Order: sequence, then structure tokens, then C-alpha cells
Amino acid sequence: MAEKKVEAITSMDEDFAQWYTDVVKKAELADYSGVKGCMIIRPYGYAIWENIQKDLDARFKALGHENVYMPMFIPESLLQKEKDHVEGFAPECAWVTIGGENELTERLCVRPTSETLFCDHFKNVIHSYRDLPKLYNQWVNVVRWEKTTRPFLRTSEFLWQEGHTMHATEEEARKETQQMLKVYEDFYLETMAIPAVTGRKTEKEKFAGAMETYTIEPMMHNGVALQGGTSHYFGDGFAKAFDITFTDKDNTVKYPHQTSWGVSTRMIGALIMTHGDDNGLILPPKVAPIQVALIPVQQHKEGVLDKAYEVASRLRAAGIRVKVDDSDNSPGWKFSEYEMKGVPVRLELGPRDIENNSCVLVSRVTRNKVFASLDNIEQGVEEMLQSVYTELVERVRTNLASKTHTATTYEEFLDTAANKPGFIKAMWCGDSACEDKLKDATGGVKSRCIPFGEEHLSDVCVCCGRPAKHMVVWGRQY
Amino acid sequence: MAEKKVEAITSMDEDFAQWYTDVVKKAELADYSGVKGCMIIRPYGYAIWENIQKDLDARFKALGHENVYMPMFIPESLLQKEKDHVEGFAPECAWVTIGGENELTERLCVRPTSETLFCDHFKNVIHSYRDLPKLYNQWVNVVRWEKTTRPFLRTSEFLWQEGHTMHATEEEARKETQQMLKVYEDFYLETMAIPAVTGRKTEKEKFAGAMETYTIEPMMHNGVALQGGTSHYFGDGFAKAFDITFTDKDNTVKYPHQTSWGVSTRMIGALIMTHGDDNGLILPPKVAPIQVALIPVQQHKEGVLDKAYEVASRLRAAGIRVKVDDSDNSPGWKFSEYEMKGVPVRLELGPRDIENNSCVLVSRVTRNKVFASLDNIEQGVEEMLQSVYTELVERVRTNLASKTHTATTYEEFLDTAANKPGFIKAMWCGDSACEDKLKDATGGVKSRCIPFGEEHLSDVCVCCGRPAKHMVVWGRQY
Repeated sequence: MAEKKVEAITSMDEDFAQWYTDVVKKAELADYSGVKGCMIIRPYGYAIWENIQKDLDARFKALGHENVYMPMFIPESLLQKEKDHVEGFAPECAWVTIGGENELTERLCVRPTSETLFCDHFKNVIHSYRDLPKLYNQWVNVVRWEKTTRPFLRTSEFLWQEGHTMHATEEEARKETQQMLKVYEDFYLETMAIPAVTGRKTEKEKFAGAMETYTIEPMMHNGVALQGGTSHYFGDGFAKAFDITFTDKDNTVKYPHQTSWGVSTRMIGALIMTHGDDNGLILPPKVAPIQVALIPVQQHKEGVLDKAYEVASRLRAAGIRVKVDDSDNSPGWKFSEYEMKGVPVRLELGPRDIENNSCVLVSRVTRNKVFASLDNIEQGVEEMLQSVYTELVERVRTNLASKTHTATTYEEFLDTAANKPGFIKAMWCGDSACEDKLKDATGGVKSRCIPFGEEHLSDVCVCCGRPAKHMVVWGRQY
Repeated sequence: MAEKKVEAITSMDEDFAQWYTDVVKKAELADYSGVKGCMIIRPYGYAIWENIQKDLDARFKALGHENVYMPMFIPESLLQKEKDHVEGFAPECAWVTIGGENELTERLCVRPTSETLFCDHFKNVIHSYRDLPKLYNQWVNVVRWEKTTRPFLRTSEFLWQEGHTMHATEEEARKETQQMLKVYEDFYLETMAIPAVTGRKTEKEKFAGAMETYTIEPMMHNGVALQGGTSHYFGDGFAKAFDITFTDKDNTVKYPHQTSWGVSTRMIGALIMTHGDDNGLILPPKVAPIQVALIPVQQHKEGVLDKAYEVASRLRAAGIRVKVDDSDNSPGWKFSEYEMKGVPVRLELGPRDIENNSCVLVSRVTRNKVFASLDNIEQGVEEMLQSVYTELVERVRTNLASKTHTATTYEEFLDTAANKPGFIKAMWCGDSACEDKLKDATGGVKSRCIPFGEEHLSDVCVCCGRPAKHMVVWGRQY
């Protein structure tokens, strides 16, 4: 039978959207399903998600959060309890109207998010200050009916975690909201190798029902933003709507203060579009299902495969995820295949290498080759994994810096939006009418956030010329 | 503020059903939700599920299985592709008929199980013998619309894993089916401390669309069975219905052979009803979120809490899950609380213990107290955890043996069913009419399975007197 071919993919510069679709398909991350807008996450894509989950879950638990599971159905009356919230989500709901062959007396929304369900439960389990804080999280599937969808980036069903917490005081809840955004920021940098802009959403871009929304906004390779994760402070709005109260130490009855925060399988989209290149995916070592692709060269020769298995088992013992590809495909095919799959390090091992007690290590980012001694191969591989991480972070920083522009006049803003992909830093008066105007005038540039550590670029709003209140980072988004 | 009370629960012997409900509630495992038939899994219950998941997932992966994620919606036309399957599940489906404010052109079933979705995907990814076997699994929520529900045992929504595999030959697929039942059997015994009956389902009790269904049937403390997990061999029925083919080594086009297998959050119900007692839950050490409850005695005295934290951190370093309860509740309250929660070992540590360089260890099963030296407390605790496991297994074996009866005549069968709770071993002719007759005559005793290693009790069917083909284990079920 003929060897499978690793087909070339569309070049990023030629057609970024097609390049993305090609990578998703050729790296075997996801597939389309027969259900409109819903994707199949294939083993390689799901293994990335498992690594993400494991890392984040440990971060949540280290801060005292506990996992729970709420039902996936929300009765319509429950969804309607908080007015802003239902207005935000009702248009995107999928509704179950028939159960067990009978028309339901009340239709059920498939959860788009679970604030209402958590509140309905909090009402039963929060009575005293001793019951606070409640620090809950769940890893679940959610549904938001989308008209146009793309794998990982926007799908009608997706996987995510949603944290929901209740606190005795506003101060504590606000601190939690910011702390969890910081957890996301650390995770993006340390695990996903993605330094990113963080800040506060404007009134217009806030989550439905929230008083404050904080966001992390990684920039993709092409300069487009992806809302990478959000953390919301709700005040006591839901608590009042759901009648959740507690008796405080001073014996008075109070409403608790609430937060929620979430990240989703979109992050896999962020990984692809931030790090990938024309040869396919590039995965940061911490999320890579395979960290080292060990390719035996002239594997039919005596001793090659034995040595390959021995090296692999030494690396595994050192906690490194290795795959030995001993299939009958050619080394060249294998090189392309694991480049496509974004494996951070390739280890080539042939008869001459074995003779020299060494092997070849190749970085997926720079494609630089180095010879490494087999004596301390664990260390050699660890160092290259570390350098892959460092190189990825540097590349993202460079891309972010080179594609972040400043505009102080309306004309400059429009000109930048039209000609330079990326983010625009510009002052803003605080009026959402200016956000609308800029979006319409540019064909889609929206406020990403008011960044932490905002700069003072000028005294007036880039749009209307009235006094500026904030610096905003603007950009197009997925 | 007055100390919370640990209220007594209903006695098992008085009202087993009420006892179960009390344990679920008082041990804070689950709560009812506002959605009919759907439960909230609370942190303590979910932590048990996480331990179950982690253990099973490692067993699956060690055998080469990969996790994936399929959509949760099944278009009606897809569900209808395999006739027996749709007949089995259609009456239990929840249907989404509206998405994003529009009536859908085709209604979507919320997955009750995912054979159809996996087959729809297998069709796209299986072409050659090189693509086989496909060994997939997913951890997801599923929905089966139930009229009467009980937490963990029978809920409209539940969590489970469903393995779906495709193989080149019937032999390999049949081997997989039995191998995965063996994985469940080992897991029940080694991790859940539940030795159980295993075997093959009769034609009448098979899974919808399966050629063979294998089952594990643990007996609850009261003698009632719980279908604890099933593994199905499908032959090539689905493959034909979904037109899944592959080119084999001999260059001929063939249909692959399929299996599926699953266990669910029901297993938490099995843990409760198998091991619990009148003081609450009893958890086998491997699934217990807290393995040791460390209760400081006279904790206000100098050095007591410091020593408690020191001992706890030594135990944690040895990989033991410890909780120090340093709250201002009384030791007596704490003793009851952790007994209710089924924590396998209690460690009491007071000033006199510290003086003697020792502590008291109490087994949740036997409630025996032993003094243990603090010098090698890790070993002392490990030994008691091991003895808790051994004692649980022994108790279950004894219960199973004492509540398994034999009947060789119809009268004996009815008499046993009416007067002795538990299983009945009896011969059967192979005709489902006899299963129906026995079920009706006894008010619910059904065939659990044809056990592996069936005995020969007599030559004739216990129901009709015709020649017997098999020995069947019969029993009532949850």
C-alpha cells in the first residue's frame, strides 16, 4: 500500500482562515459533525484539552476552589430571574420542549452559562457567614446557538470551566474576580506561552448581568484579538434576584457578593493561531500531548529500534511525553507529520548516532538542529523544551509589540484600522456611542479592554474630542 | 452561635430507601435541583467522582484507549439509522426543537448514549486496516428522561464514560468487550472494595442494538442488585447501518466489528448502599476525598494544633489525603461528622497523646481504636487504611454469600423471592417468556445475568420444566 502523504497546507499569509482550517484538519484536532455548529474533538485535540484542564484545575484547587456539577437544563422561569442576564442569553438558547415523548409544561434551556443554577443552589446552602465563601467550579459543556461557526473559535456547543463564587463582602468578591483573571494570565503565559493584554471591559462589552468584567485578550499571529477568558464581579444583583441571604457575625442579614469566571476550548484556537506556522501547529511543551517525536533513522538496521525504545523509556522516566514512531513510513514523512502536529522537539536516532553515542534534536520553532549526547539525553531534551517555550514567548511578545499601534486622532485611528492589522491604543471619553461609531467606521474594530496600567496618550477621546476618561485597547476579534 | 448538630439518620433496617436519602443529604453528596429529575453533585460527591474518573481513566489509557468529545446533540435522522437502537432509546429522549429563537427543521435528541455519533465519525476516519483498531472513550453527561428518579441511582441527567471501539475482526472485538468488563470488575474490587457477580445478559435484557451485553451486578447491602456497568459487542450491525467499511490486508472491503462499554455516577449510589451503615457513609480509601480526619483534642492547649499540622503534613508527604478539623466544634461533633462522611480513618491527637508520642487511630468500619506511635505514623495509617479496605471487601463477600440462594423448583423460587432478600441462582430454558412469568409472579425479580462459571443446579428450567440451557442469577434491581 502506498505511503500516506503529508499534504501541504495553505500558507498563513495567503489565506489565514483557510490555513487555520487546514491545521485543524491535518493535525487531526477536530472534525465537523453532522450536527450544525457542533464539532468533534479528536484524540489529539482532546489530549491538549486534558493537559489544559489538569493544569488549570490544580491552580483553582490550590486557591481553595471545589468542583461540583450542576444540571445542564435551566427552566425558563429560572433563567428569567435576573433581567439583564436573560436578555443577554435568551437569543442564543437551545430549548428542550419534549421529554420522554411528552410536551414539557415548562421548556428547558440547555445551559449557555450557569449563574442561575448556581444561585438556585446557593440559596439552599448559604445561611450563615460560616457558609462563606463558597468557591465552586465546574468543567462542563455549554450551548450557545451560533449562526456562523468555526472549530474551537465559535461553536454552538463547547467545553469550558465556569467558576462561581459567593463572598461575605464586596471587597473579598472583587479580590476574587481579579485574582482569577491573574490565574488566567499566569496560565496563558506559563503554560500556553502566550503573553497577553489584560484589563477591564467597557460597560458595552460587559457580561450580561455583571457589574465588572475583566478579560484576557491574546493577539493572534495575524493581529486579530481573541477574547481568551473573562472574570466577572456581580455585586449582589443575582443574590437579590434569587433571595440569597446570610446572617453575618454582627447578626444582621446580608446579601453575599458574587463572581464567575471561565475559559473554554477556544483556547485551543488561540494556541493554533498564536504559535502555528506554514508547517502546521506549534505546541508549547506543557500542553503538548507528545513533547518529543523520536524518529528512528534506518530503523531496519540492528540495534536502532532497541536503542530508540531505551532512550524513550529513559525520557519517560524523567517525566517527558515521548512517542517513538516505528511505523514503516519514511523518516521524511514522519518529520512532516510531527511538524504538522506541532510536537516541540524531534529526536532523530540512526546507526551513526548510536555509534557516536549521540542523537539529533530539532526544535519545532527554529528548526535548529543540535547534536546531543545520549549520556545525559534527559537534560538535553529538557533544555530544548525550555528553549522552545522561551522562543515561543519571545515571538509572541515581538508580534504583540510590532502590531500594537497608537492613535490620537480620529483620522489616525481610521487609517491605522484600515492599513495596519493589530491593536490600537487610543483615548476614550467613556461614552458607548463612540464605541459604536468607531466600530461602524472601521468595519468591526471594537474596544478590547481598558488595560491594567493604562497610559495617558492625550487628553481627549479619539472619536469625539471630549475629555478622555480612559485609554482603551481596540481591535478586531474572533 | 450554637454548634451545628449532626442529626441522626433513619436506620437502614427500618427504612432502607429513607436511610439512602438521608445519607446522600447529610453527607452532602448531592442535592435536588429545580429541574425535575436532575441532581446537583456537591463538592464532596464530585470529589468521589473525580477519584473514580482518575482511576478508571488510567486503566483505559493503559490499554491504549484515547479520549475524545462528540457533540451532545443527535439529529433524529441519525438516531434512526439503527432500528433496534432507536426503538430502545426514543421513548427516553429529551428533544431540542428550538435553537436561537427559531424552530429547527430537524429536532435534536440530547444524547442518551453516543453509538450513532461515533459511527457517523468512524465512517470518516476508518478506511484501511491501518486505521484499526479505534479505541475511543469519552467522559460526558447524558440524558434519559425518567419518570421516577433518585439521586445517583436514576436521574434524567447523569455523568458517565462511554467507550466506543472498532476492530478489524470479530474475535478482537469480542475480546475487547470481555476485557473491558474485566476492567470494571477489577475496578469494583480493587478501588471500590466491591466484589460482584459478572456475566452475560439474556436476550431480553441486552442493550438496544447489541449482539451481546456483559454486565457487573454488585449486590447492595439489602440484597437488591444494581446494574453496575455494561460492555456490549455489536458485531457489524451499526457498521452496516452507517456504511463503515475498511480495506483489509487482503485488499477486500470489510465491515469492522464494534464494542461499547460504560459506567456512570450510579457507582456512587453503589458505594453508599454497599458499604454504608447507620452512622452514614463508609468510603473505601481509594475513592475517599478525605482518607484521614485528624481531630485535635483539647486543641486550645499549647502545642496541640502545631503537632496536628505537623502530623498532617507528614501524612500528606506520604501521599495520604488528610483533613485537620481545627474548627471550634466539639470533638464529639467532629467524630459524628466524619463518620457520616465515611472517612475511613479518624486520628485523634490530644495533649496526653503528644506526651506519649502517640495518637489514636479509629477504623470507620469496625470502630476499633488502636494507639499508634507518632514515630512511624505514616505506616500506622497506611496499615489501617489497608485494613479498612480488607474489612469492607470481607463484609461484602459475606453479605453476597449469605444473600445468594438457590432454587430448583418454581415454588421454591417464589418462596425465596417472597421471603429472602438477595439473589436467586436457578436454571433457565432460554425462553424470555419464562423471564416474564417469573418477574410477574414475584413482583419484579428479573434475570441479572448468566454468570461466568455458571453451575449446574438441575436439568430443567425452574419456571417451565423444559430442559435447562443456563444457570441464571435472578434478583430485584435498582
